[in-house]
Amino acid sequence: MAIITLTTDFGYKDHFVAGIKGTILNEVPNANIVDISHAVSPLDVQECAYILKNAYPYFPNGTIHIIGMDSEVSPENQHIAAELNGHYFIGANNGVISLIAKELNLDQLVEINIPNTSINSFPSMEIFTKVASHLARGGKLGVVSKPFKNLKEIRELEPRVTNDGRTIIGNVIYTDNYGNVVTNITKAIFEAYRNGRAFEIIARRQKITSIHNSYNSIINFELPENKRLGPSDLLALFNSSGYIELAIYKSDLKSVGGASTLLGLKHLDMITINFL
Amino acid sequence: MAIITLTTDFGYKDHFVAGIKGTILNEVPNANIVDISHAVSPLDVQECAYILKNAYPYFPNGTIHIIGMDSEVSPENQHIAAELNGHYFIGANNGVISLIAKELNLDQLVEINIPNTSINSFPSMEIFTKVASHLARGGKLGVVSKPFKNLKEIRELEPRVTNDGRTIIGNVIYTDNYGNVVTNITKAIFEAYRNGRAFEIIARRQKITSIHNSYNSIINFELPENKRLGPSDLLALFNSSGYIELAIYKSDLKSVGGASTLLGLKHLDMITINFL
Amino acid sequence: MAIITLTTDFGYKDHFVAGIKGTILNEVPNANIVDISHAVSPLDVQECAYILKNAYPYFPNGTIHIIGMDSEVSPENQHIAAELNGHYFIGANNGVISLIAKELNLDQLVEINIPNTSINSFPSMEIFTKVASHLARGGKLGVVSKPFKNLKEIRELEPRVTNDGRTIIGNVIYTDNYGNVVTNITKAIFEAYRNGRAFEIIARRQKITSIHNSYNSIINFELPENKRLGPSDLLALFNSSGYIELAIYKSDLKSVGGASTLLGLKHLDMITINFL
Repeated sequence: MAIITLTTDFGYKDHFVAGIKGTILNEVPNANIVDISHAVSPLDVQECAYILKNAYPYFPNGTIHIIGMDSEVSPENQHIAAELNGHYFIGANNGVISLIAKELNLDQLVEINIPNTSINSFPSMEIFTKVASHLARGGKLGVVSKPFKNLKEIRELEPRVTNDGRTIIGNVIYTDNYGNVVTNITKAIFEAYRNGRAFEIIARRQKITSIHNSYNSIINFELPENKRLGPSDLLALFNSSGYIELAIYKSDLKSVGGASTLLGLKHLDMITINFL
Repeated sequence: MAIITLTTDFGYKDHFVAGIKGTILNEVPNANIVDISHAVSPLDVQECAYILKNAYPYFPNGTIHIIGMDSEVSPENQHIAAELNGHYFIGANNGVISLIAKELNLDQLVEINIPNTSINSFPSMEIFTKVASHLARGGKLGVVSKPFKNLKEIRELEPRVTNDGRTIIGNVIYTDNYGNVVTNITKAIFEAYRNGRAFEIIARRQKITSIHNSYNSIINFELPENKRLGPSDLLALFNSSGYIELAIYKSDLKSVGGASTLLGLKHLDMITINFL
Repeated sequence: MAIITLTTDFGYKDHFVAGIKGTILNEVPNANIVDISHAVSPLDVQECAYILKNAYPYFPNGTIHIIGMDSEVSPENQHIAAELNGHYFIGANNGVISLIAKELNLDQLVEINIPNTSINSFPSMEIFTKVASHLARGGKLGVVSKPFKNLKEIRELEPRVTNDGRTIIGNVIYTDNYGNVVTNITKAIFEAYRNGRAFEIIARRQKITSIHNSYNSIINFELPENKRLGPSDLLALFNSSGYIELAIYKSDLKSVGGASTLLGLKHLDMITINFL
């Protein structure tokens, strides 16, 4: 049973997501359609790529991922498909696929080419579902495409290393459901420059001097509860996606607040790490 | 594998949607249950009908659609089922099915009649799932119903043609995830009265003199980027559902805003088209 | 086809829910994964238990329920699994499973014990999916666990009966999508103390003297519409989960308001029933 995932900025109210699902089920009655997210901020290529990049590796090889965002075809926004790391991605050439492929070589990159399809204002329905269904039935990409080379490169905000390797300057790239803010500084970069040194992470007026591997490792469970750190305490951790994240322990945006609200950290705000 | 869709005003937090899914899976273990929307505004019959009317045709013939809204049975709100255009609809006689059937003849209309079912405060669970499961197993509607004739007619807001066919006055009937506002003026009506004339669309203080077939057809891709129309420019288009829609190119309600916020257009606001 | 449900506080935007689904589909390609809710308020054990407790009984026996909330392992928050009422529950020992099991005996309670699993910041993905997949393939709990006895008891807010059985004092425990407020006073408790007496329900400044079995039973359909009770009228009812609920007939939080907004009733607010 082929798996087809959907990552879109369509939201959860309109008929668009259901339209895509119905269209696929018409073509491939036993397709297993899985929602990744429909709450991507409209047209936010970076956010869409972040969510899909962190979700797709959990799916089996051969999974087909439809990206429903900014997908009207134009001379500058071709419909493309790619094979990467054993997965298929179908979307527009708007930067999402190029961001996902950043650290990996694309095994295949094609422009979608299906004769006799109409251009209308909902191409993810008309075109992407056709390609996904074709792949789900075991078809080859080549049959519905032609070669393509002009993958749109999007400059991802990369952390900068300055000060002779003593400083890494990164940015907030994502805020999650708990208000935890994810930076673009990976564990790999951090470790590459650390060299065993002590460090401080500066986020606005806050300073953090350790990075944890789990949220609750800030808690010393041998202390009595009233002597421990706990809810509303700030921590940095290497999150499950490999990024440095700033979090409030047991945060809730609606009550105690999260790192985003308590520290006032917004998308793209600067985070500095100094090695001492 | 029978497909059963759900369109409700239950929201995404409460246990109601899961309750319906569990009940169906008890009866039909291999049912393919697809969410159309659970974000219908509570009791908004017009909105519910709009979403389902635009979603259902994408599904295969034989799909069973449960409508979970305002479904307590009463002398004025019978539980009904209908066959329309190869699809089944199950809900209360609150106007949703009558709005969906507006332009099509119902092939079958019945009142649900299942002996020994309790009346409680959650009938979509108790009753509608039974009918859906019966149909999903290949059963006939007649077995769980009796004849019915009193389909509740809801007056849908229809565009008015005045001024000897020189003016169409319509209304906003839906605002989508991007803040694009959908009018009740269809491409068919527009073309029927246009007769090749130039026209102006008046929406509050804005005037639009062309209608596009895709959002990005307002862009002249031969111009350099800084000379083009682009994000935050207003356009009218025939949307993928066949209605005239007013949209902001690359709108985002959270940043640039959408047609709804920038033009201040709300549900039922008037849109006028003058043929010149 | 094994059914695995998910109840989490992950929200609908992040990649976490999709990560869990992908992981399960890798292990059990034909698993039927059903969302119960991902909108549980972060870390709200009571709310999570309320939603799952009211949803799970609708699912077939043998269904596997993953609880993704506050699930980092610690000396005080073990990973556990339980068998209850023919269903399996997998989560952390944070009180959710103990609240669900309140009125029922657990048939089995174990601590999850899978050699060679890493501790990271996303255990519901790493651990709970492994146990769920094992069960879905027909495996026994014993193989992935060891005996466990220390189920964390959470004090659920119970209604108090005072005044020689003439008064029940309860609290608001949940507010649903319509703003209806659910109290912790069950129909069973109410009937046990009523003894045929008249009663008044006091909720802030409102007094209600009857309890209905359906929302629209406050309407006398023999009266003409303008003489009836109707939208915006307050009622009490025994809801489909067996609790006393205060509701506004045909409420909508965005327009007329619901019981929560019109009466100003918040989580844990007091509701008093006096038998007269």
